[in-house]
Amino acid sequence: MPRYKATIQYDGTNYAGFQIQKNVNTIQAEIEKTLKRLTGGKPVTIHPSGRTDAGVHAMGQVIHFDLPQQRDEEKLRFALDTQTPSDISFSKVESVNDDFHARYLSKEKTYHYYLDISASRSPFKRLYSAHYTFDVDIDRMQQAAQYIVGTHDFSMFCATGSSVEDKTRTVYEVTIEQTCPTDIVFIFRGNGFLYKMVRMLVGTLLKIGHGQLPIDAIAQAIDQQNKELTGPTAQPEGLFLMNVSYSE
Amino acid sequence: MPRYKATIQYDGTNYAGFQIQKNVNTIQAEIEKTLKRLTGGKPVTIHPSGRTDAGVHAMGQVIHFDLPQQRDEEKLRFALDTQTPSDISFSKVESVNDDFHARYLSKEKTYHYYLDISASRSPFKRLYSAHYTFDVDIDRMQQAAQYIVGTHDFSMFCATGSSVEDKTRTVYEVTIEQTCPTDIVFIFRGNGFLYKMVRMLVGTLLKIGHGQLPIDAIAQAIDQQNKELTGPTAQPEGLFLMNVSYSE
Repeated sequence: MPRYKATIQYDGTNYAGFQIQKNVNTIQAEIEKTLKRLTGGKPVTIHPSGRTDAGVHAMGQVIHFDLPQQRDEEKLRFALDTQTPSDISFSKVESVNDDFHARYLSKEKTYHYYLDISASRSPFKRLYSAHYTFDVDIDRMQQAAQYIVGTHDFSMFCATGSSVEDKTRTVYEVTIEQTCPTDIVFIFRGNGFLYKMVRMLVGTLLKIGHGQLPIDAIAQAIDQQNKELTGPTAQPEGLFLMNVSYSE
Repeated sequence: MPRYKATIQYDGTNYAGFQIQKNVNTIQAEIEKTLKRLTGGKPVTIHPSGRTDAGVHAMGQVIHFDLPQQRDEEKLRFALDTQTPSDISFSKVESVNDDFHARYLSKEKTYHYYLDISASRSPFKRLYSAHYTFDVDIDRMQQAAQYIVGTHDFSMFCATGSSVEDKTRTVYEVTIEQTCPTDIVFIFRGNGFLYKMVRMLVGTLLKIGHGQLPIDAIAQAIDQQNKELTGPTAQPEGLFLMNVSYSE
């Protein structure tokens, strides 16, 4: 069956996450419902590069799926883009070989985490950034972030409920920038991320930035496999899956 | 009774507009409910610089209201900011003389209208910009916009339902900018705007930009009081009341 790769965006606000679950609204359910309509009733399963949690957003999630027959890429993209709800959009649809796999073949992912540090939270940022009202030292966080870069066992930054056995991941880059007086963006780029890993790293960086954990807390947490040196899981609404790369 | 002026922001998405109405959610109802709680049950009426319609947003709406007793400005702002829903925020609260009036004393208003011209609409812009997929010539619209500037009878750009008699307004500035390949912003600054005037002007500018009306359509519509030379009312979600000025 012809296989397709699609690059999609979604506003995760009104969804219980990517993965299909009973009795709740999910990204997967919406897209599969639309695909079923397009194939005249044949069920189609979509496979993402990875799930995203409730409230988490995507500007560059990648999925693949097989269709019973060949379709024109742009017509298929337009149909999916216009027939899914307006909080899901299809940026690109490509015909791919049937050995393409959105999850197994992904080489690199980029996440952004947006933080609103204004005293009075903007109504326009409330769904797309986490609000943090404590003092936070950006220099301290930038120093602490360097301990994340590299190949490490990130077990201490993986939420329970993950079935992944090997918890070693390579993080290529962590950047923390104050883009304006009220906004901070955290950029994570790596070969893969564990379940809730980015949000747990952000929660820990914020505790370091606020002075409640030492600058090398993340290095220590990794070396000693010590959960006490980690912070809480940061809120979902600040997180965006920005890009997934594949080797050609 | 002590009078207060407040500068507020709101995401209009989930509201049937500013003005209180039965059986629907309005900005006024939410704020008055919170004020009533703060005064221990005494009803308080708020007065805006002007109403905004369903779905229209504000980053700098101004209101005034009287309270039964004097309050600390920052404590009052904080209480209103945190006790109203998260899609309404209070940027500033100031104690003012009891002759201050948010509507009658406003000298100048600025509106922004955001347009998303991308083929595939971004899920993150869907609530904060209007989607327009036809070809549009920005130069044409910029030329046409210059006919709006000045003091004119804008009757042709006022929706029915307005009780205002004098439909003469002075527009100081109309700017149209393509801020990135997919975004256009229209900026309107004037001494006041009629009911739906900005959206009717944007709808007409788009028809001019698309080549369905001549460049001087707005000048002609005003001179001849000819409704045929106007376009439809542009969608509410692109409109933001950015600022209201008062002479000190």
